[in-house]
Amino acid sequence: MARRAGSDGIRTEAAIREAALRLIARHGYEAMSMRRLAEEIGLGAAALYRYFPTKQALLFDLLRAHMEELLEAWGRARLAAPAPAIDRLERFTRFHIRHHLPRPDGVFLSYMELRSLTPENFAAIEGMRRSYEQGLIEILEDGQRDGTLDCIRPRLAARAVIASLTGITTWYRAKGPLSPREIEDTYWNMIARMCGATKTERATCSTPA
Amino acid sequence: MARRAGSDGIRTEAAIREAALRLIARHGYEAMSMRRLAEEIGLGAAALYRYFPTKQALLFDLLRAHMEELLEAWGRARLAAPAPAIDRLERFTRFHIRHHLPRPDGVFLSYMELRSLTPENFAAIEGMRRSYEQGLIEILEDGQRDGTLDCIRPRLAARAVIASLTGITTWYRAKGPLSPREIEDTYWNMIARMCGATKTERATCSTPA
Repeated sequence: MARRAGSDGIRTEAAIREAALRLIARHGYEAMSMRRLAEEIGLGAAALYRYFPTKQALLFDLLRAHMEELLEAWGRARLAAPAPAIDRLERFTRFHIRHHLPRPDGVFLSYMELRSLTPENFAAIEGMRRSYEQGLIEILEDGQRDGTLDCIRPRLAARAVIASLTGITTWYRAKGPLSPREIEDTYWNMIARMCGATKTERATCSTPA
Repeated sequence: MARRAGSDGIRTEAAIREAALRLIARHGYEAMSMRRLAEEIGLGAAALYRYFPTKQALLFDLLRAHMEELLEAWGRARLAAPAPAIDRLERFTRFHIRHHLPRPDGVFLSYMELRSLTPENFAAIEGMRRSYEQGLIEILEDGQRDGTLDCIRPRLAARAVIASLTGITTWYRAKGPLSPREIEDTYWNMIARMCGATKTERATCSTPA
């Protein structure tokens, strides 16, 4: 999408994305002008348009990068079958929290500005979101087969799991009373129970006393 | 906040709120102009300002009304102690879903436009949100005492419960494959497990086969 011209170009592009993420999260996509964005990073408007020809292209790039990063990181982190589904669910839970905690603006944008995508761009992002959700649904379904999990409706359970985990980014503060590890352990205890983990001694082994 | 002048005034005010909710949910608070809002309902800009003297006053009114409605409705619907905590949690779960399903724009705004409130207005809304959350925390703590629930961290569990239930509004469609009742039953099964409901025969009695 963006035109890269050596390391300066890459740095400029990164600065544009970072500023756009911050401005859109603060003011909303419609309220952010490309002129304001260019000013924010000390770039001429014409130069900005060489990187992102339209504001829509920039928004799509941000939301696509957010989802690509997520899918790639999960591809590396995930435990594949035939590992027991309960272990794969634990990996998912801890991964999802760790990946999203440092990205509250990206999470906020990905939810809030779906409304501002063109239908074609929306379909592309929605497909990536579905693919991530589908990975979790498969873990829950496999848990039914291997006997380590017991969800009554895996599709709804996947949505409930993702919503509760993603919600952490709305209240988490680095200086809060709980460490990321304590939060992870507490959520894993809840998710394991919610999904009918049958090996409960494992599912709760890392919870606080 | 708004000036009411007989039934015409009340109707006009309701039309302003409805249009503002829709426009802000679609375009964002900063991008919505009072002029555009006035046009949307066929009102002069000066007339609009007699109802809401500033755009901030209008936003605050919308978010406050959303929370007041929620707190009042929950005040009427809730089961008070000494009813068993598990029964109060079931009431909360079903109430929260039923109350929010018909209000997706209100939910979206209440989350997304907290950023646009002045610090004073933010504090007022945040206080109402905390009060609702605190009601759930008390149910979970009472469950520890009366032995019907077993949460390891009631504060985190309350946030996980609310995030997962509120998340339903992002995917629910009236013409979808599941009825609101089936969704409620499935979520109640998950929430009961997540919060360590000990009377599991009750907690799962209304789940699908």
